[in-house]
Amino acid sequence: MEKTNIAIVGLGTVGTGVAKLLLDHGDRTSRHAGRTLWLKKAVVRDLAKHRDVDLPAGVATDSLEDVINDPEISVVAQLIGGLEPARSIMLRLLESGKDIVTANKALLAEHGPELFTRARELGRSIAFEASVAGGIPIIANVSQCLSANQIRSLEGILNGTSNFIVTQMDEKGAPYDVVVRKAQELGYAEADPTMDVDGTDAAQKLAILAHLAFGATVDWSDIPRMGIDGLDPDDLRYSRQLGYRIKLLALANLADDGLELSVAPTLVRIGTPLAEVRDAFNAIRVVGDAVGPVFYHGLGAGQMPTASAVVADLIDTAVGRTRLTFQTLEYFSIDNPPRAKLRDADTLVGRNYFRLSVANHPGTLASITSVLAKHKISIASVMQHEGENGSTHLDPVPLVIMTHEATEGAARAATQEIESLDSITGPVVRLRVKD
Amino acid sequence: MEKTNIAIVGLGTVGTGVAKLLLDHGDRTSRHAGRTLWLKKAVVRDLAKHRDVDLPAGVATDSLEDVINDPEISVVAQLIGGLEPARSIMLRLLESGKDIVTANKALLAEHGPELFTRARELGRSIAFEASVAGGIPIIANVSQCLSANQIRSLEGILNGTSNFIVTQMDEKGAPYDVVVRKAQELGYAEADPTMDVDGTDAAQKLAILAHLAFGATVDWSDIPRMGIDGLDPDDLRYSRQLGYRIKLLALANLADDGLELSVAPTLVRIGTPLAEVRDAFNAIRVVGDAVGPVFYHGLGAGQMPTASAVVADLIDTAVGRTRLTFQTLEYFSIDNPPRAKLRDADTLVGRNYFRLSVANHPGTLASITSVLAKHKISIASVMQHEGENGSTHLDPVPLVIMTHEATEGAARAATQEIESLDSITGPVVRLRVKD
Ligand SMILES: NC(=O)c1ccc[n+]([C@@H]2O[C@H](COP(=O)([O-])OP(=O)(O)OC[C@H]3O[C@@H](n4cnc5c(N)ncnc54)[C@H](OP(=O)(O)O)[C@@H]3O)[C@@H](O)[C@H]2O)c1
Ligand SMILES: NC(=O)c1ccc[n+]([C@@H]2O[C@H](COP(=O)([O-])OP(=O)(O)OC[C@H]3O[C@@H](n4cnc5c(N)ncnc54)[C@H](OP(=O)(O)O)[C@@H]3O)[C@@H](O)[C@H]2O)c1
Repeated sequence: MEKTNIAIVGLGTVGTGVAKLLLDHGDRTSRHAGRTLWLKKAVVRDLAKHRDVDLPAGVATDSLEDVINDPEISVVAQLIGGLEPARSIMLRLLESGKDIVTANKALLAEHGPELFTRARELGRSIAFEASVAGGIPIIANVSQCLSANQIRSLEGILNGTSNFIVTQMDEKGAPYDVVVRKAQELGYAEADPTMDVDGTDAAQKLAILAHLAFGATVDWSDIPRMGIDGLDPDDLRYSRQLGYRIKLLALANLADDGLELSVAPTLVRIGTPLAEVRDAFNAIRVVGDAVGPVFYHGLGAGQMPTASAVVADLIDTAVGRTRLTFQTLEYFSIDNPPRAKLRDADTLVGRNYFRLSVANHPGTLASITSVLAKHKISIASVMQHEGENGSTHLDPVPLVIMTHEATEGAARAATQEIESLDSITGPVVRLRVKD
Repeated sequence: MEKTNIAIVGLGTVGTGVAKLLLDHGDRTSRHAGRTLWLKKAVVRDLAKHRDVDLPAGVATDSLEDVINDPEISVVAQLIGGLEPARSIMLRLLESGKDIVTANKALLAEHGPELFTRARELGRSIAFEASVAGGIPIIANVSQCLSANQIRSLEGILNGTSNFIVTQMDEKGAPYDVVVRKAQELGYAEADPTMDVDGTDAAQKLAILAHLAFGATVDWSDIPRMGIDGLDPDDLRYSRQLGYRIKLLALANLADDGLELSVAPTLVRIGTPLAEVRDAFNAIRVVGDAVGPVFYHGLGAGQMPTASAVVADLIDTAVGRTRLTFQTLEYFSIDNPPRAKLRDADTLVGRNYFRLSVANHPGTLASITSVLAKHKISIASVMQHEGENGSTHLDPVPLVIMTHEATEGAARAATQEIESLDSITGPVVRLRVKD
């Protein structure tokens, strides 16, 4: 049987998983590739560090040159995180004639156009299934399986760490800090989970999907985003009372006047599929104009789910499918004009959840509702709770308002105006509501 | 831009949808294929019959020879249903050098090995995404996206017509016959819906998936199957009281001693994703050893969802990806020994739902439970209802028993023995329960 020599660069969580699949399950990779995928080299920084995989003698090396200078190695799984040296290493690998498989969404979101253009110039390919939604093969599904469709919308829970944290806060009533520590202990969250919890990671993944699904060329940092790092357990509780769960939702919606993109904690109705996505799972609902709605659910991260995606890409690359896809689709080409432009965020229409802390005296509700009325925002429901035990009638009380549809511009203006009312004793929490 | 000439053979529901996508959305097909997909011919039986699509002059023909003898046509969407003339036409198309895309699962389930072997001999390919689960791209997902996995199990609602009927019976309490007529009016069920409702269609799809996922070479007719045609509304009602819905579930489960395959109405716990699949939707839950569980949900049939799958296959075929996949994977090769054998059905273990009609006198329950005990089947719950209004204490009453896990052999033997008890006044209904 023919063989394709593979190298792994970066033997961390994902790299180790990929090595295991290649070494322990050669039968299944060769069955699907029609050839042996032979792990020839694994580049590590520190040869002495223990790895959770038994590499055959001669495979581990601390020299990237062993891969660069080996013409027999044709495909490389580049599994170093972050921007540098990942970017420079990827460019050197491409220039030495390797096809690349990667899981690094940050790198693609930041340097995609440069890397893809260079790969195309060199006649090489970059496969990146593992970069979005881990075990859910959403890249192949959007760019190939649903290729007969104009995708109309795409909604997803794309960050497993955030979803784990929100689920635990919601179900256990645990405070944010405690849950973050638990997520770190379980290996879901990194030592510095900032990019996960502030919406960056989800926005980077959304930027990649928006390019594939809509031909949009967006900088991830231009996507309006809000993380779960400021989420108050009260809002989870009130939402539940109203029949919703809060999820960090990445959303792309194509309208006549452009593409709406956003990442934000969003009230999702209990019982709908996205609301029931728990813990470290990811899910994506895609609507195509021919196929209708298609819903995907699976593990969004973790060693083996991510390795599953990387190895599928290695197989596709070894078989030659990736190159055909890569050449045809012209991913992130600087020559292709974008097919969709971002909509003006102020014109977006949606429902809102407001939580205010209000002084407990007559006229307060009237002043708030008249601000909303002025901005043509009609109210769907109001929930005013009594103060906590021991509070006096003078203490501020929480007020929760659900609105009907309104433009983002109106909702933002109303929020500012409400915040400046005398009877409001703190910042106004405003969250998006999905119907 | 280069162009690939396409023909459609059979301009019925699906064929018309494919023609619409090719004619109305050339931009998106060419963007994904890197070439124009040009609909050159559409073969119909009756040129005078009205079609719901405007074909350009010269495209419609009633002569298959116009396709066979046109060397410029390289890819054909073969969208005639049934076995003949579909089989002979497909062989002739392959022999005249065409690559084939088809949605005909009956044909593949019956003549797959012959057709695939012939295609391989001739250096041609057959793509068949649309043959299983309509708009859900399960073929590509199982055979490519999850290729790094040993699939462990696969559970699906694969027949939209049956699911529509069961959903309507369950939610509206309507009797079987009424709902079947409604399904026919809505175009979900054919004039003769036998293959849909008796489990044949789901078994044919399961045979295809079992081949892709497990390398099993099974005749669909060897798959133990039961349809929804005999389903009694009482069982839907009692199941719901117990916290379950009944779904026509196709199941594949790999164990050390072989592969379990079956199609049967099954009690699925309310709130789990499969239980919430409504009307004409399909869903599939796949468990891979690396990726874990992945769940897919989408429209299982209908003109445009199915056409979406056919056109994605046309694009993959025009780009050349299908040929690479087809050559490597050796679908349905008579040379490849099957990798998984069917398990002896009697050794399968599962829970059971029994509904009996019992004489309302002392000792009845004791005689039934002692039969179960004899076969080592322990009881999880018993529900005995009073007779209907107006019945006397002598009339038979329904008795519902949920069991813990037992082998299929024991459950079958117990069923026979219970049926022969004097106190049992009718056939025993036994349904599978999924945990
Ligand atoms: N973990 C997941 O579930 C997951 C899911 C989807 C995508 N991803 C992406 O996959 C990539 C890898 O993630 P990970 O979780 O595997 O990260 P990780 O565990 O931190 O592993 C990264 C590895 O890269 C190595 N490395 C860094 N610089 C190197 C260099 N110059 N030469 C050789 N090796 C170098 C590190 O070596 P040391 O061991 O010496 O530090 C480490 O082993 C990231 O882009 C991440 O975003 C991860
Ligand atoms: N409909 C769905 O939702 C769906 C979903 C998945 C898969 N499928 C599969 O797709 C295939 C087509 O289904 P469909 O729903 O489109 O069926 P359909 O509406 O009955 O269409 C079949 C077409 O084939 C034509 N035909 C039959 N023999 C022919 C011949 N010798 N030459 C030319 N045309 C011939 C028929 O012509 P006339 O018009 O002259 O009768 C009819 O238009 C079937 O295998 C079905 O199982 C269908």
